[in-house]
Amino acid sequence: MITGKNYIGNKLSGNGSKTHKTVNPKLNIENTTAFVEATSEELEEAIALASDAFKIYKNKTGKERATFLNAIADEILALGDDLLKMYCSESGLPEGRATGERGRTMSQLQSFANMIETEDWRLNVIDEAIPERQPMPKSDIRRTSIPLGPVVVFAASNFPLAFSTAGGDTASALAAGCPVIVKSHAMHSGIGELVASAIIKAAGKTGMPNGVFSNITGRGRTVGQALVKHHKIKAVGFTGSISGGRALFDIGNQRTEPIPVFAEMGSINPVVITPNAIVARAEEIATTYAGSITLGSGQFCTKPGLMLTVDSDKTQAFVADLAAKTVAIDAQCMLNPSIKSSFVANGNLVSSQEGVSVVGRVDGDVDTNFAPSQINTVSGKDFLTNPKMHTEVFGPFAMVVKSKDEAELIHVINSLEGQLTGTIIAEESDIKNLDGIIDALQSRVGRIIFNGVPTGVEVTGAMTHGGPYPASSDSRFTSVGLGAIKRWIRPFSYQDWPKELLPDGLKG
Amino acid sequence: MITGKNYIGNKLSGNGSKTHKTVNPKLNIENTTAFVEATSEELEEAIALASDAFKIYKNKTGKERATFLNAIADEILALGDDLLKMYCSESGLPEGRATGERGRTMSQLQSFANMIETEDWRLNVIDEAIPERQPMPKSDIRRTSIPLGPVVVFAASNFPLAFSTAGGDTASALAAGCPVIVKSHAMHSGIGELVASAIIKAAGKTGMPNGVFSNITGRGRTVGQALVKHHKIKAVGFTGSISGGRALFDIGNQRTEPIPVFAEMGSINPVVITPNAIVARAEEIATTYAGSITLGSGQFCTKPGLMLTVDSDKTQAFVADLAAKTVAIDAQCMLNPSIKSSFVANGNLVSSQEGVSVVGRVDGDVDTNFAPSQINTVSGKDFLTNPKMHTEVFGPFAMVVKSKDEAELIHVINSLEGQLTGTIIAEESDIKNLDGIIDALQSRVGRIIFNGVPTGVEVTGAMTHGGPYPASSDSRFTSVGLGAIKRWIRPFSYQDWPKELLPDGLKG
Repeated sequence: MITGKNYIGNKLSGNGSKTHKTVNPKLNIENTTAFVEATSEELEEAIALASDAFKIYKNKTGKERATFLNAIADEILALGDDLLKMYCSESGLPEGRATGERGRTMSQLQSFANMIETEDWRLNVIDEAIPERQPMPKSDIRRTSIPLGPVVVFAASNFPLAFSTAGGDTASALAAGCPVIVKSHAMHSGIGELVASAIIKAAGKTGMPNGVFSNITGRGRTVGQALVKHHKIKAVGFTGSISGGRALFDIGNQRTEPIPVFAEMGSINPVVITPNAIVARAEEIATTYAGSITLGSGQFCTKPGLMLTVDSDKTQAFVADLAAKTVAIDAQCMLNPSIKSSFVANGNLVSSQEGVSVVGRVDGDVDTNFAPSQINTVSGKDFLTNPKMHTEVFGPFAMVVKSKDEAELIHVINSLEGQLTGTIIAEESDIKNLDGIIDALQSRVGRIIFNGVPTGVEVTGAMTHGGPYPASSDSRFTSVGLGAIKRWIRPFSYQDWPKELLPDGLKG
Repeated sequence: MITGKNYIGNKLSGNGSKTHKTVNPKLNIENTTAFVEATSEELEEAIALASDAFKIYKNKTGKERATFLNAIADEILALGDDLLKMYCSESGLPEGRATGERGRTMSQLQSFANMIETEDWRLNVIDEAIPERQPMPKSDIRRTSIPLGPVVVFAASNFPLAFSTAGGDTASALAAGCPVIVKSHAMHSGIGELVASAIIKAAGKTGMPNGVFSNITGRGRTVGQALVKHHKIKAVGFTGSISGGRALFDIGNQRTEPIPVFAEMGSINPVVITPNAIVARAEEIATTYAGSITLGSGQFCTKPGLMLTVDSDKTQAFVADLAAKTVAIDAQCMLNPSIKSSFVANGNLVSSQEGVSVVGRVDGDVDTNFAPSQINTVSGKDFLTNPKMHTEVFGPFAMVVKSKDEAELIHVINSLEGQLTGTIIAEESDIKNLDGIIDALQSRVGRIIFNGVPTGVEVTGAMTHGGPYPASSDSRFTSVGLGAIKRWIRPFSYQDWPKELLPDGLKG
């Protein structure tokens, strides 16, 4: 049962007068619940509760916080079919994806729980005193990591579970010891409320302070920006568009007390395919990439949007085959009408640039919110003259750039903005000759992949999901994997501190 | 022999027409050399060289870079008396300090060299593939850390060696694999040129690429801001005033591609003295703190500028004694005329606020650039009403706040902005009752000290020299200690990467 209200701490609250409804994109109808945008008083109350909760929550042991995170995973599972149905009705994604993403969300929570059961993540360092050192005695100094304070998390559109209410940002912030206020995604408000209810239930069962979590509803940017501006908020996590992320980043940095805003934003994920690979296995590559480009209707941050090749007859045949295979895959529903219209607008923008040819596009009618997939091609020379071609087309769309030689291909890489991923498709015989391409890619991306696809982001300690701007607002961090916790903590040193007052991990 | 020119890479260059001279603050006369401000063409050239050098330098092994850092330390020592004399003539600091700071600068370089001889600092993680995982095989993912690119370092005024040309920012950036362009401090341009010559010599001897280091001269903000704005610059390190640091931070964040600007700025370093400590050892505390407040003429980022007490007869006697002991110490020369005039202006600002009493101030004449030390006091109530009293008075100055009780003292802590350090002076018998004070301090500072002084910052792996804004622009980093390298690196992941192409540290 959902109510359309906000969770201000553990209290359902809907005092506002502005409401919105979510959309079932497959049926292209509004869902029934009216969600009430939080008032400024409700925001103040959620922030005050988070700030008070921080004083208690930061001092909970790792084991206590782990119990909380595991309980959230259990309560999400306990939502059962209600959650899966809501997921499908608000996202247009199939039930298999709902189940898979729920599993991923739970395993993220459990991974962070597992990590904080020991102290390793704090990177504690103990430097003991040397009283006899000359000319001055050396003090005893011990460093640990402590949480920053209340964090605002913006739910993403493309992962209604795994990057939303109880997704990676929330899980890592709660693991670190930071209370979280989620700005629910306006198109997934029902999923948001259900998951929020699971978090609130878990907090109650495991004795966490009221205010450790709040869920805020609202459409447009007003509510979210008000949260980021508030002086009691100490950090922000965001996944979404460049314009949305940059706006929050700017607000965070223009505050009297600037705060870190980690925004994971745009990426077109270049894929380099060597001439040898095209000779050896063009068809296999086309099949694999048609699948990767259209996976989840192309709505992944790591969708391969740009394929970099050296031109030849074989390359042209490959492009035609890739287009045929891509277009042959059934059109799928997009997340919501606004994403569909951006897909069309950005696809048209890129396709209409000088020198761009549309090689394949689903031309017949598709249902209103479904995405007709599309493959374009352009020469390296034309690509290099026109940065509009770098525009991310979020959806089942890719552009193949045919350079005249490897040097031009490397120029193309160098012309790109920062990216989440870069991929090389190559043969064994190429390996000795890839230095130039690898060097160029490394300067632009957070993760490089060999003979694979960039879609599919493992949640592990070794993952980097971030990269130079605008892939992320700060390439020194990742939003996926255990390293994501580093966004929410700061080093803290104790000098000559009495042993009984040191945290357990620093007693040595 | 100094020339007054810039090092544009390894070339001495002085094409500009604007010049400035440094000042011998003790004698209050200008030194002889005219330093030529870099032209915009020279800046472009230094940046282009750094950008090209990065492609080579980032691929040097840790051992090669360590050899370079150690060679810099050797070449600095080889500058011998020339450096020590220049140091004294441009800073007004005594020769003992020059020798000590030179030792610290060398040991910083050697510590970073030592650290990068192994791979531990990269925090490499290897997650091996699980091909049989269901429903999808798990890829092999390996993460390391890579350098961001060319870094601009602003030399600090108060550590002409240890936080300047070859100071902690430069050492950590070079260790990380980032070329460095130093904006020399206008009042230490001679020290800057000498140290730059040592770095250039070391780079030549150890085969480092031209452009791995440049030294830029200039007065005012034009040159420095132009460097921070340049799209090939990827990060900035700064130590200095809040207004200077914030201006650079804003420029860095407002770029099309924002970059991290780590600025270590203002701090008044609160020291809590418990009533029991005052009863037990007021005189010892006064002696120790008179020394810490006046050390180096009070020109340390960690100078204790604010002492927090609970009012009583004994507290009042302590304040009088602290003032007498502080004033009794001979006035010392300040770094330059501009720092002296800021000291006077800010001291007057704070002293003239409602409720503030001057308990002790050197009233007789002091030499032009020498600092008359001063101790003020104010009630907790008055302090809480007036944020102007939080102004950092850089120099031998401290304010004692007398609160009516511990609760008010904690309010005073909570009213403060972020600080580098917080100190508690307490008795054994207090230890069980310090929770409230510790909690409040922890939320405001990067390092807490028990029964010591905040001056004296150890360069160790456990040090945190940073803290909530405005102590630093990003509390998640430190500018002193081995952790300082983290400002200049980003995580980077290899997925299913051929073993022969992996960096050595990831081969497993």
